[in-house]
Amino acid sequence: MGNYILKDENAVYYECGYSCDNVTFINLEGDRYFITDARYTIEANENITNAEVIESKDLIKSAQTVLKKAKIKKITFDGNDFSFESYSKLVNGLNIKFVNQPSFSHKKRIIKTKKEIKYLTKASKLGRKGFSALAKYIRKNGFDQDESFLHFKAIEKMTQTGLLDVSFDPIVAINENSAKPHALPTDKKLIVNDLLLVDAGVKYKRYCSDRTCTAHVDFEKLNFKREQKFKNKKQQKIYDIVLKAQLNAINKARSGMKAKEIDALARSVIEKAGYAKQFVHSTGHGVGLDIHEHPYINSKSDVIIEDGMVFTIEPGIYLPEEFGVRIEDTVVMKNGRAVIL
Amino acid sequence: MGNYILKDENAVYYECGYSCDNVTFINLEGDRYFITDARYTIEANENITNAEVIESKDLIKSAQTVLKKAKIKKITFDGNDFSFESYSKLVNGLNIKFVNQPSFSHKKRIIKTKKEIKYLTKASKLGRKGFSALAKYIRKNGFDQDESFLHFKAIEKMTQTGLLDVSFDPIVAINENSAKPHALPTDKKLIVNDLLLVDAGVKYKRYCSDRTCTAHVDFEKLNFKREQKFKNKKQQKIYDIVLKAQLNAINKARSGMKAKEIDALARSVIEKAGYAKQFVHSTGHGVGLDIHEHPYINSKSDVIIEDGMVFTIEPGIYLPEEFGVRIEDTVVMKNGRAVIL
Repeated sequence: MGNYILKDENAVYYECGYSCDNVTFINLEGDRYFITDARYTIEANENITNAEVIESKDLIKSAQTVLKKAKIKKITFDGNDFSFESYSKLVNGLNIKFVNQPSFSHKKRIIKTKKEIKYLTKASKLGRKGFSALAKYIRKNGFDQDESFLHFKAIEKMTQTGLLDVSFDPIVAINENSAKPHALPTDKKLIVNDLLLVDAGVKYKRYCSDRTCTAHVDFEKLNFKREQKFKNKKQQKIYDIVLKAQLNAINKARSGMKAKEIDALARSVIEKAGYAKQFVHSTGHGVGLDIHEHPYINSKSDVIIEDGMVFTIEPGIYLPEEFGVRIEDTVVMKNGRAVIL
Repeated sequence: MGNYILKDENAVYYECGYSCDNVTFINLEGDRYFITDARYTIEANENITNAEVIESKDLIKSAQTVLKKAKIKKITFDGNDFSFESYSKLVNGLNIKFVNQPSFSHKKRIIKTKKEIKYLTKASKLGRKGFSALAKYIRKNGFDQDESFLHFKAIEKMTQTGLLDVSFDPIVAINENSAKPHALPTDKKLIVNDLLLVDAGVKYKRYCSDRTCTAHVDFEKLNFKREQKFKNKKQQKIYDIVLKAQLNAINKARSGMKAKEIDALARSVIEKAGYAKQFVHSTGHGVGLDIHEHPYINSKSDVIIEDGMVFTIEPGIYLPEEFGVRIEDTVVMKNGRAVIL
């Protein structure tokens, strides 16, 4: 079990099934402590069965008290999880070796349990529902609306008007703005035959969905399905290449492969088509409690892909000043193969 | 001028009038460096006149290069601004003393310039517009809608459907939920004669507004003005005490007072009325690029209030399981007095 200390909200949730935005969690060989302030102690006590809830006005001081009592020699933490300031206060006066092990909590979570896969599946389903509702809205009311308005409507439709949380700030980008992988919404207005890229997701019981669709804008037929017919021939050509790359990776991914082999399944198709330099990011990333987790599907990762891992496959081609196409789905590895959630 | 290094997006914006979510900023006796990645360099070069823009794939490495060249002996940083991990990477191999000075950037910004006050005034004006739009919506369509839906509508109305950013996630709380100072929206539905608390703000050119209104729910007359008539006598009594406390602080605050004296102007009214223990937070906080800045208006602060400081005055009384009342405005100190923005 080891000794470790966590502050990250999702990392703590993974440990004990409850979390909040002001918590320090300590595990000492299986003895577990959830330290929080008075706002959260009632809920914490109701929800946590495998840790002692400690109410505190000064979380660092309380953590020090727990650590002093325990008489341990060393403890693991994630250097990304603590500011320099809170780390300094925490270690001050303690005779314990703090071992910085970046991402140790993420790495524990790389293979999802059945329950987690159930939640991620449900999140993806709710995400699809959001995309459909957005498509319906745009068909009816989207004409001549600008990106920032449509971005807001994307949040409204994805969240079922505030019922769910988004898993990240969605991207809604028209034509040349879609050529920026992380476009911010502008006052550019949507008209017929535009290319529209939407990257969005929601959370279900804290688990994230993530999906990107690139669509041809036709106010009678607009949808976020895979099959798209663009008026513009170059857009169609690029779309078909990206789709082929994505399907190649989804269809040929196997448990036992290295992450970089899955990256290559997508990348090689785009390279062969002559757009290697326009695919400016990696093929995918893990999805779970955090929207970006292990495993990372890039050209350098030797991580072995296993059943139960959940990650995105999202190749893209970006032509600056023209347009960009990205097609993204989240998959789970099951019986050796990638299954779209 | 000194030597200092910053990562915080708003702190960097204050230095050079532009910022982004991946930046390291270095000031070496007035020589200034804005280090960012390729996504932001074009905009950075267009907007920054007082710093050299450096494009980098590894911001920490580039910062080290700048620091090594400079041959300085020490540099100031804010320990809250760097994770332990990025701090460790940054200092690794450098023979420079890093001096942790928490909040040094916030403290520089405690007195606002004329331009900043102009932006903050505009932000407050836009915030008021949002409150009016929300009141209008609720009068027409709010009946029997739940908090999470109304919370979403608050964001819609405050942001003018996505045109502006909110300055923080708004609070929309009905009756007993308003007794929690930081209530999360539930499925509780709004009906006539409810008490409704809304705490919300927007940003204008990155500067924040912040305001809280507590209103009596009447679907013909609902508004977020100061004058409120509650059906429930206890609600009216508590409302009148909080209003008196807020006006006492606003009317009697003077430049030259200590922050704790302004806190006492509000707190003493609530104490005299017998609700000292139900006023569970401080009287206010500075507002600027960040929604919480210096000066903090609490019972312990000896900070001298000066013309040009901008902060909230927001006393509240919280009766658990019953209801809460908070009335908040943002003020600027001008000619020795507090003027509501």
